[in-house]
Parts: sequence; structure tokens; C-alpha cells
Amino acid sequence: MEIRRLGFIPGEHVRRETLFHVANGYLGMRGSFEEGTPPGVRSVRGTYINGFFDSSDIHYEEKLHGFASIQQSIVNVIDTQGISLDLDGEAFSLSAGKVRDFRQVLDIETGVYTRSLIWTSPRGKRTEIVFRRLASFILPSLALIHAELKPLDWSGAVRLTSSQRGDVLQDSDPNDPRKASVGRKMLRVTSALEQDGAMLMTAETLHSRLTMASAVSHRWQGGFTIGHRVGEMISEAMLVGRVKAGEAVSLTKYCVYTDSRRFEDPAEQALELLGQALKLDFPGWAERQSEYLDRFWQRAGAQIKGNEPLDASLSWSMYTLLASAGKDGIGNIASKGLSGEGYEGHYFWDTEIYMFPFFLLTSPDIARDLLRSRAAMLPEAIRHAREMGHEVGALYAWRTITGSECSAYFPSGSAQYHINGAVAHAFLTYWQVTGDLSFMAEEGAEVLIQTARLWLDAGHWQAGQFRIDSVTGPDEYSCIVNNNYYTNRSAQSHLRGTVKLCEALRNNGMLREAQERTSLAEAELDQFRHAAEAMYLPFDSDLGICAQDDAFLSKKRLDLSQIPKERFPLLMHYHPLFLYRHQVCKQADTVLAHFLYEEGEDEAAIRRGYEYYEEITTHDSSLSECIFSMMAARTGRPEKAYDYYRRTAALDLEDTHGNTADGIHAANMGGCWMGIVFGFAGLRLHWNGLAFRPCLPDKMEGYSFRLTWRGTGMQVLVQGGEALFMIQSGPGLELSVYDQEYRVEYELRVPIKANAGET
Amino acid sequence: MEIRRLGFIPGEHVRRETLFHVANGYLGMRGSFEEGTPPGVRSVRGTYINGFFDSSDIHYEEKLHGFASIQQSIVNVIDTQGISLDLDGEAFSLSAGKVRDFRQVLDIETGVYTRSLIWTSPRGKRTEIVFRRLASFILPSLALIHAELKPLDWSGAVRLTSSQRGDVLQDSDPNDPRKASVGRKMLRVTSALEQDGAMLMTAETLHSRLTMASAVSHRWQGGFTIGHRVGEMISEAMLVGRVKAGEAVSLTKYCVYTDSRRFEDPAEQALELLGQALKLDFPGWAERQSEYLDRFWQRAGAQIKGNEPLDASLSWSMYTLLASAGKDGIGNIASKGLSGEGYEGHYFWDTEIYMFPFFLLTSPDIARDLLRSRAAMLPEAIRHAREMGHEVGALYAWRTITGSECSAYFPSGSAQYHINGAVAHAFLTYWQVTGDLSFMAEEGAEVLIQTARLWLDAGHWQAGQFRIDSVTGPDEYSCIVNNNYYTNRSAQSHLRGTVKLCEALRNNGMLREAQERTSLAEAELDQFRHAAEAMYLPFDSDLGICAQDDAFLSKKRLDLSQIPKERFPLLMHYHPLFLYRHQVCKQADTVLAHFLYEEGEDEAAIRRGYEYYEEITTHDSSLSECIFSMMAARTGRPEKAYDYYRRTAALDLEDTHGNTADGIHAANMGGCWMGIVFGFAGLRLHWNGLAFRPCLPDKMEGYSFRLTWRGTGMQVLVQGGEALFMIQSGPGLELSVYDQEYRVEYELRVPIKANAGET
Repeated sequence: MEIRRLGFIPGEHVRRETLFHVANGYLGMRGSFEEGTPPGVRSVRGTYINGFFDSSDIHYEEKLHGFASIQQSIVNVIDTQGISLDLDGEAFSLSAGKVRDFRQVLDIETGVYTRSLIWTSPRGKRTEIVFRRLASFILPSLALIHAELKPLDWSGAVRLTSSQRGDVLQDSDPNDPRKASVGRKMLRVTSALEQDGAMLMTAETLHSRLTMASAVSHRWQGGFTIGHRVGEMISEAMLVGRVKAGEAVSLTKYCVYTDSRRFEDPAEQALELLGQALKLDFPGWAERQSEYLDRFWQRAGAQIKGNEPLDASLSWSMYTLLASAGKDGIGNIASKGLSGEGYEGHYFWDTEIYMFPFFLLTSPDIARDLLRSRAAMLPEAIRHAREMGHEVGALYAWRTITGSECSAYFPSGSAQYHINGAVAHAFLTYWQVTGDLSFMAEEGAEVLIQTARLWLDAGHWQAGQFRIDSVTGPDEYSCIVNNNYYTNRSAQSHLRGTVKLCEALRNNGMLREAQERTSLAEAELDQFRHAAEAMYLPFDSDLGICAQDDAFLSKKRLDLSQIPKERFPLLMHYHPLFLYRHQVCKQADTVLAHFLYEEGEDEAAIRRGYEYYEEITTHDSSLSECIFSMMAARTGRPEKAYDYYRRTAALDLEDTHGNTADGIHAANMGGCWMGIVFGFAGLRLHWNGLAFRPCLPDKMEGYSFRLTWRGTGMQVLVQGGEALFMIQSGPGLELSVYDQEYRVEYELRVPIKANAGET
Repeated sequence: MEIRRLGFIPGEHVRRETLFHVANGYLGMRGSFEEGTPPGVRSVRGTYINGFFDSSDIHYEEKLHGFASIQQSIVNVIDTQGISLDLDGEAFSLSAGKVRDFRQVLDIETGVYTRSLIWTSPRGKRTEIVFRRLASFILPSLALIHAELKPLDWSGAVRLTSSQRGDVLQDSDPNDPRKASVGRKMLRVTSALEQDGAMLMTAETLHSRLTMASAVSHRWQGGFTIGHRVGEMISEAMLVGRVKAGEAVSLTKYCVYTDSRRFEDPAEQALELLGQALKLDFPGWAERQSEYLDRFWQRAGAQIKGNEPLDASLSWSMYTLLASAGKDGIGNIASKGLSGEGYEGHYFWDTEIYMFPFFLLTSPDIARDLLRSRAAMLPEAIRHAREMGHEVGALYAWRTITGSECSAYFPSGSAQYHINGAVAHAFLTYWQVTGDLSFMAEEGAEVLIQTARLWLDAGHWQAGQFRIDSVTGPDEYSCIVNNNYYTNRSAQSHLRGTVKLCEALRNNGMLREAQERTSLAEAELDQFRHAAEAMYLPFDSDLGICAQDDAFLSKKRLDLSQIPKERFPLLMHYHPLFLYRHQVCKQADTVLAHFLYEEGEDEAAIRRGYEYYEEITTHDSSLSECIFSMMAARTGRPEKAYDYYRRTAALDLEDTHGNTADGIHAANMGGCWMGIVFGFAGLRLHWNGLAFRPCLPDKMEGYSFRLTWRGTGMQVLVQGGEALFMIQSGPGLELSVYDQEYRVEYELRVPIKANAGET
């Protein structure tokens, strides 16, 4: 399975740098050209370490109390991508001579990205050139670049110059609120040296004072001699030799990265890890990479049958999620993964609501790492709650790297209190799916209690109802609203889950530590329970739907059909107040609530809600269409679900939002997986097991996926009129299919219902 | 009548610079020391020209569409305050030697500020030193400084060095949202020369590219010789001579200012005006100043009897309003007048709602000038409406100098659509009080129609009601709300008034021009009428009060008694979301609506509303207590009204908000006058005349004021159990007193009701 692009198209280059980035959750390297970008072609050349950031003061013309004061931005670190080729006196460049058979291929089974081409030089000499790259899942500090060149019709001298550059800058665009506004330098080289063929460069961020190191070494095949040149900001290795027509030579560049958030002595440890790396050649590391991915696909593999583009997108999404996710309890998943600087490399609720479920059901160890990363931010969340005027509890930052709030526009930033519900949801479903009560005692309970507490302080009682005013729900086209249905539902589930967890921990004698750490009083659990039961959930009885918030349905309805296409996304063309005063949604909000928290909600209200909100939703957010796909399936509209799913699958591969250049839309990739599992297969997680409600749109022959539930590995195959559930490892389990309970020991076949979503 | 401060108190200096500024509506000069500020004493040395600004880009970390992009800031212009004294070899300074009899006095009858003292030099020589200043109301480009010194016990050499400095900077404080965040240079000297004893300096603002000129000349008494030194940024005149014990010598410094917003050739015209200025000596200009003020007090004079501090504050407020108000149709009234740089010298609704009524009823010509200044901003208001997503109409900028929006935090800036209602209110009451239909045809109608139109686009129809969503009312502790009572009431009055005006103009054959300029369709007037009649005004029938907005009364009530005193003003200690989610008011909102728009409102609801909102209002805004004072009087609580009035009167004189250093609170000064006229005397303007409802609190013996209604000058005196209405000029008029109609030809006496506010 691979992602493939043929031919060099200058206008597509910057977006292909995103598509063909290589990453492993620690390190990410955009698919920039080793030899440099042809003049006039837009490129964002970048290499990133998950969670490695610089900070800067946030300037406000009118600064009010509690506004986030320090920005954090993922840093474009030392650039080791450069390898320039001098072929018999002619410099290889796509802007000179002629290029044939240009191909870029990311093989998601082996985790190797290949760029190959045949270059005819201005003087007419033809050379086959192949670059391969990988970011190792086995040794996350390691990125490898393998360059191979074969003169087809000439012999002569070649020179390969491989660079390590510390003169790196950030990408920027002052007119796009989704990107950093000021292009700037964040990294300063602190030392550069060469020692036994290893070029070591260390650098420090200008304000956060984090340090990093990069160690580069080379191995080659062919008769080269190597020399090094170390400058203040740029080090280079030059390999000089001769080649013969028809004979290939190759160079492997080992690029090792370390940073001070994970390593005590980044420079020394970079050299150590470089030593380890050099023990294998490129094929050796590629083989290890394959083995790692084999195991991954073994437990996670999913397919869409009879629809190659969707299938490719699904697999690529899963692969890229794996490549984006921090696995060390420090790095989380940036909204752009490790593929670009969009959204400053921040972590959002995207992780918990859109990406976490994939890991939870396929790679629970990684899911746990992600939760550990959130748990580590709890002290910052407690501080943030105080800044926001809460005397108790914790409020997770809407966007952050280390946990402190980095949102400079709080109405669609810090006001999104539902981030607390998202974090809680992830912890609770982790417990649900894994049954790992120890982890919940050690890490989960404290997070859940502190964040649950916040709801009690943020909300208030009125006329026997518990209400939550002045928050922003997921839909950023209505900010600072009262009783956002999504938020209140999320808080309700959060409070209930926290009570349930505390009871389970107590029953197992495991509550005491969390109780002491949080000074949890017995009465507080009663308050949680009480607030959850009395949670006010706005409902419009005329329309028979849940209301997005207290005021939403009384606002003026925006007729989206009257707005010219070029004025989308609306946020780029309308003042926020225009959006706020209309019934218009950037993304799924109440519909998302119905996806996550359907328990006890009226079926007809869910269906009517879908219909109502669909008409006023622009999907200007990449978090929207996957949810509508799943809820279309849920409400008995498989063909509609398919339409949304197709757009979800195309988002980055076809750049339908026009900003894939800034990085992948990682949440949407989670949506691509969820669209199959929670969408078409209709999976819902319950305390007593898994529940399915499979459907199959006409345009798919079938689909299959694997998942793990409390130690049992299972494959689900929906095809040919039936759903097949096969236990692949571990004990049998209880399943519900179309609300019918089954016990599955080996396999279960259930005919697909035509109208699966209807109940 | 004078404002007097005795003794030099370093900690009070910067605030006294505000109190003792001299201004005339064009030019303002803070009361900084001629000889310079003693080391370690905070000073904001400033001179300002009304509406003379520099611009700068507003930087946002997350910039959304339509956010205000250009800031305007009043510029601290060339400093001509400096006169240093060398007395027999010793430099005069308050930080050396000893100071006795230090007095600062602003005489508001003559408009002259005097600082006098007796200085004993380090070597023990005593000198009496007196500085006098005025900013001429007759020649607004002119400020005069008169320095007089008399050696008491010595004879010898003196040197006076009088400076003109272009090396001026802005005041700043990055942690106060009410002030500029970055101290910076805004002015660049473009030329400096001396010619026949006149020092001319021209300068240009760095970004707005406005130019200004300052021309300085000197006259003296005593045997001095003068020399000049012209530098790139600083010019100086040095006067050297000898003095004898017991004999006074004096210097008059003529400081003339011009700017390119009013003058075609500021440099040439500054010299011309300087020539005019030199025709009179200081006593001559002081006499003219007195005559001007005599005429002002003649038509505007007001007194509070038996309460000297209040009386002084009232007179000072009236004087300062006069000194703050632009009278050329270009300058308006900055929220700090011309006394400081707070709020960047911007114009707000403060003008129309708090200050305009004073001018309207005492100096209708100045009122008209203020309206002309707003009318000139109409094209910018139309542009602003487009930026905010309105396809028709005009929306005045919340804060501005030239008309473009300068609010960098729109939830308590541009979202305050009620600015349109305030501008309309001023135009409509101008018409009401003056009957000047020509002006309304020429300037008013277009403004009213364009701004009225905006309501139709901003609001919408639902279930037969006209609703206005997502705006911010006057209370900035609740932002972006739906159906703010104040806003909707204001829009209703605005729409009705516009219809009434258009009908009156049509009946007089004067509508056509405005109709053509605005493309007003007949149907639009019907829409205005219809929307006004169907305006939704939220009312809580349980509480029996008008609701501040749809959601306000269902929020959590903040118990102000539980908040420590040092946490006020709340905006400096709580995140906006904390404030937004509570029932807490920064200032009068619904109560203000009841003051401005009482017609047809239920009396009991007004009274209960006052009681309800009073408990949750912090008065963190200086616009609040004066309104509560008036509404306390209105609702039959004269003693309560007195308490609020006392605080209103003390605000700047006692610096009760702690920021008088940044400039006066001009709106509060309007409130100080309104508190007597609309508060205790209970004046309301009606289409058919004036209505009074006088009351007298125990702590006042009485009060009197003068006003003009359609060419009739009247004095009102409330004292000794009765209210006396005396016609002073012009024809008799109809009055309503306690809802009883009277025709007054000469005078009318009505006994005061004990419970005047009750109806």
C-alpha cells in the first residue's frame, strides 16, 4: 500500500512536502528536496521534534486579566535534509536540464519514502537518482536518508555535499490566524564540530532555553573520499569520487536528534545513539521498520474493499497517526502531527476526541502514553484554572505544548471548557476498553477528580438545574454561550464517570492515594452525582431537537446557499460577530455530542438534530465532516455517510481545505479511521462490551478492521451482506449487534440490515 | 471659584499634572513643572492637540477577519513647557533647597492656573516664584506661560532658559489595558529655526504623517538680554540679567501650536498666529479669557449651596468640559479631555451620552460642533459597517479619533453597537432642544438614516418580534449577549426618532437631499417604524424587572460583599469569562436605559430594576455612579442620590479610581453636571418642552443652574422648600413640574415634594 505522486509539479511541491514527510512520533522531517528547492517554488523546509518549542510573549493591544501571556511554538530544528549532487561538473537541480520518471512514493507497509527520477543534465548526461528516507520507529532519534545515483550514459567525477544547517527559520503568514504571524528565528547554534566523521551540532531555543543536538554521519558504497567542513551555522561533508556508466553508487546519511526535554546530555547522547544507528545499514533499518509496521498492521490493519482511493487514504491515515503520536509520555499529538508548523505544533482536544480512539482500540500502549502526557500537564491545568478565576479544580489549556494556555483569542480558545470533558472521556474510555484500573488509580483518578471539580465551580444551580454559562462549545462560530448542549453533556458524562471510577477504586481499595492527593471529600462525589443528574440540557420542543445552546435557535438562520463559494471558509471573510449572531456552524457540535454521548438521548431528536444542523454547517473545520459521516450512518443514511466519508478521506490527499502545505490534518485522519469503525460499522463502547450496528454504502464492496478489547484481538469484516466478527487472539467476548447480545468465542456472522441506523 | 492644592507632595504630582492642565478644546498642556520634575517623582509631561494622532498597526497573535487593524493615538507634541531658572548660580529645583508656601491654584473664573512658592536655595537665598498659565479660548492655538520671580533677600545674576523640545515620547504601561502598551516615539522633528526672536519647530508623526508646528516667542519685564540656541531637537531661549532684592522680574512665553488637520501651512500659520498673540501681554490675554468665561458662566453657571466641595467640583467639571470640547467640527471630546494620554485620546459614546447634554443645554453652538465632528465620521462608519459584515448602514466605531475603529478587543469594543444609538440620541435631542431643522436636514438626517439602517441588518425578526443578537451593552462585564435591553431600547428610540425626523423634514420640503444621499426608500421608513414597534425588550416577570439581556438573570449572581476590596476593579483581577458568567455589572446598563428611555416603561419596573442592579454593580467604570445618582433621585431616594453624587464629584479631585494621573474622567464630569440637572432637579426632555421633578437631599441647602431651551434662557433654583424657574432671556415656555403643566413667562415657584421621584 502506498501513496504515490508522479511528475514534478511546482505548485504542488509545498503540499507534497507535507504528504511525504517521514515521522515516528518523536521526529518529523518534511519531504523537502535534498538538493534544495528550485527557485520560485514555495517550500516549507522543516524538521521537528515533538514538543520541542520556543516561547515568546503574547502581545495584546488591550490585555485583560488572565489572558494567556506566553506563546509556545514548535521549532524548526537543525536541518539535515541537504545533499547536493555535482555530476561531472553539473549541479543537479530540478530547475536545470530535464526530468523524467519523477516519482514520489510513501510505502506505508515499510515506512520508507522514495523519490526517484531520471535527470538529463543541461549537457545531456542522463542519471538515475533515487532518494529514500525513513524516520525509525525503533530508534526514534534516527532519521535516515539514502541517496543512490546511477549514471546511465556517462562516466566521470561526482561530488556529494551533505549538510547540517543551523540557520533555520520558522514558516509564517501574518494574515492567517491559523499560523504564526511573524516569521522568526527561534534557534541559535551553540556548538558545531566534527569528530571521527560525525558532525555534531548543538543549538538552543532563544527564549524557552531548551537545547537540542543533531549528530550526522555517512556511509557509502562506491569509491568516495570524504572531507568535512565545520562552520558556525553550517557543517558539510563532501564526498568526492568517480562513477561509471551503468554502475550505481550510494550514500546513507544518518541523522540523529536529541533534545533536553528527554535527554540529560543531548550532545553526548546524540553521539551515543549515532553509534547505535551506524550498526545497521539502510536496508537493515528498513527491515526493522518493516517488522515494526508488520506488528502494527497485524493488530490495526483495516481495509476498504472495491474502492482503492478510500482504502489508500484509510491506510495512510492510520500510518500517519502512528507516525505522529508521541510514545514517551512527553510528546502528545500535534494537530498537524510532525509534518508542519501549522497551529504552532500545539496539542488540542483533537487528540482525545479524534485520534485517541484509534490508538485505544489498536495500540493501547500508545493510548496510555498519550494519557500520561496529559496527566503530566495536570499541574499546569490547575494553574490555568486559577488564572481563569476558579478557586478549585483544573482546566486544561485549549492549545498548548507543555500544558500552559497558548490561545491568544480566548473566545474560541480558553472558553472551550469542553477540553476538560474530552480529556476525561479519553481516560474513561481507556478504563472501559482496557480495564486497567491500576493506571486509573495512578494517573487517571487525579486528572478526573480535578477536572470534574472545575465543572462544579464553573456551573451553578438554578431552579433545581445545573447550568454552565459563558463557555464556547466545539462550534467556534458561536462563542461564549450559555448551556452549550455539547459541553453540558460532556460535563455530565465526565461527572458520572468520575463517580463511577472513584467507586470502583474504593471497592478495590485503591482510592486512598488519589483521594489524598486531591483532598477529595465524600460530599464532593455526591455533588458530582447530583450535578450530573440535574444537568440542564437545552431542548427545543417545537423543533424537537437538542439546542446547541440557550440562544442558538433564536438567532437568525444563515442561508448558506446565498453565500458565494469564494467566501468560504467563513472565518476568513466575516467578522466573528457576524458569525456569532447567526445560526451557522463551523463544525459538528450538537451532532458530535450525539455521537459521543448518545446514551439516554431520544432517537428522533438525534435524527432531527442531524437534519437541522446539517443545513447550517459549513464544515469550515476539518473536524466536522467525519462526524457527520458517522452520524449519517448512525441515522440510517449510508450513502450520505459515504459522501462525507469520501471528503474526509480526500482532505489532505487532495488538499481540499487548501492548507495541507502547513501540515496534515491529524484529527481528520483519526476521523478517517473512526468513519469506518464507529461510522459504517456503528461501533459504540459500553461498560459491558462492544456494540455494533453495521451498514454498508453501495459504493463500497466491504470493509474490515481489527481491534483489541480487554486483551481480545478481533477482526471485523463487513461484506457480502453480512458482518463477520472473528476472534483472533485472547478470550471470547460479549458483543451487541443491532441491539442483540451475542457471546463470540470464534466467530459470529450477522446479516447486515438495510437501515442499520434506524432503531 | 478655584481648585487649590497646597504643598508639594511628590506622590501626588502626576495626578496634579492632570488636575492643573490648561486646555481650550484645541490645545491641552499638562501641569508639569516648567523647571522639570524632581528626580524620582513620577511625571507624565505632555502637550496635546485635539485629534492630532499617530497611527500604528495593531498586532494580533490570532487575527480574525475584520479585526481593527490600525491604532490611532493622540500624540504628545512638541514640549514648550520648559523654563529653567538659574538664580545667582543656583539652579531652581524642588529637589534642592527648601520650598515654602507652595500653592497650585486653578481659577475657573479667569481660566488661569497659578503655581507659586517661596524657594530658599541651598545657599540660603529666598526667592518668590510664580508661574501662571492659560490656554486661550479666544485664540485656541495659543498657550501662555508667565513666570515671575522676586528675590526676597538677595541681588544678583539670573538666567532663564526657555525650551522648545521635539524629543518627546508617549506615556505607557504594558499591564494596564486602559493605556497604550508600548511607550514609543511618535513624533519626528522636521525643522527648527529661530527668526526675529520666534523659535519655530515643525514635526511630523511617524506613521500617520500629520504635521504640526510650534512657534514660541518671549516678552519680559526687567533688564534681560536674550539669546537663542537652535538644535536638531531642542531650541532654547536664554535670558540673562540681574535682579535686585524686592523687585520682581517676569517673562511671558507665547506658545503657539498649529497642525495639518486644521491648517494648510502649519509653520507659516503658526508664525502668523504668534504675531497676533504678541499683540497682547499676559494680563491682556488673561482679561480676554475672563470675558469669554464670564459669558460662559452667564449662560451655564450652576451652584450647589451649602456644600463647598461639591460646588467646587461642579464648577470645575463644567469648566473642564468646556476646556476639553473641540469647537471646530474636527476635534470631539476625548475620554480624558486634553489632560492626558489615557485611552489613547479616543472619542467614545462618552461624548454623546455623558457630555453632550451639558453643551446642548448651555452652549448649543458647541453641541452642534460636536455633532458636526460625528457627521464627518459617517463615511468611516459606513466602511466600518462593511467590515463588520453589514451590507447596508453605518456603524460608528466604538473608539476612534478620525472615525475608524481602534478597539483591539472587539467584545467590549466594536460589539458595542449601542454607540449608534448614542450618536442618534445626541442628534435627536439637539433637534428637540434647539428646533434647528436646517442642521438636521444638512447633517443629521444622513447620519440618522444610515445608522438606523444598521439595526435592521443587525437584528432580525422572530415570531413577530424584532431581536438584536450578539452585541455588547454598556456593561462590559457581560459581552456578546442577545437582546441587551439597553441596546434594544436605544435602537427603538433611534428608529422612532429617525422616522419622526424624516416626517418633519418631508413636511417642510427638506427631506429630498438626505433621501437622495442615502437612497432612502419609502418602505424603509415603514420598516424602521415596524421594527421599533415590535422591538423585543426582555422582561423578567418573576422579578418584575427589565432583564439586562436574554441570559443575564439566569446567570450566577456574584456576591460582591464576598470579594476583597483589593480585587476591585474586577477587570484588573478576574478573567473576562469569570465576569461574563456571573451576574455582575461594571456600570449602569439597564438602569442607564431607564434614565435615557423611560417613556412607556413601567414605573415599578424602573424602581425594582434600580434596586436589583444596584446590588450587583461594582461601578468599576467611571460612567456608573453618576447614573445611579440620577436614578436614585428618580426613584425617590435623594439621600442615596447624594451619596452617589458625592462620589461622582470626588472622582478626579480625590483620585478615587486611582488613575487620574492618566487624565481626567471627562464623562464623569458630564455626570457631575447631569447629576444636578437631570438628577436632583429631575429634568427630562420631551418634544413639547422640559419636565422637572426636583428633589433636594438633606446635605445640600440648595442648587441652581441655567439652561437654554429653544432660545429661552432660564435659571432654576431649588432651595428653601421650593423650586424657582426664572426666565432670563427670550420668550416664555411650557414646563412640566411633577407632571403638572405650566406656562412660564417670568418665573414659576413650585413647592418641592418630599418624595419627588415616586409617581
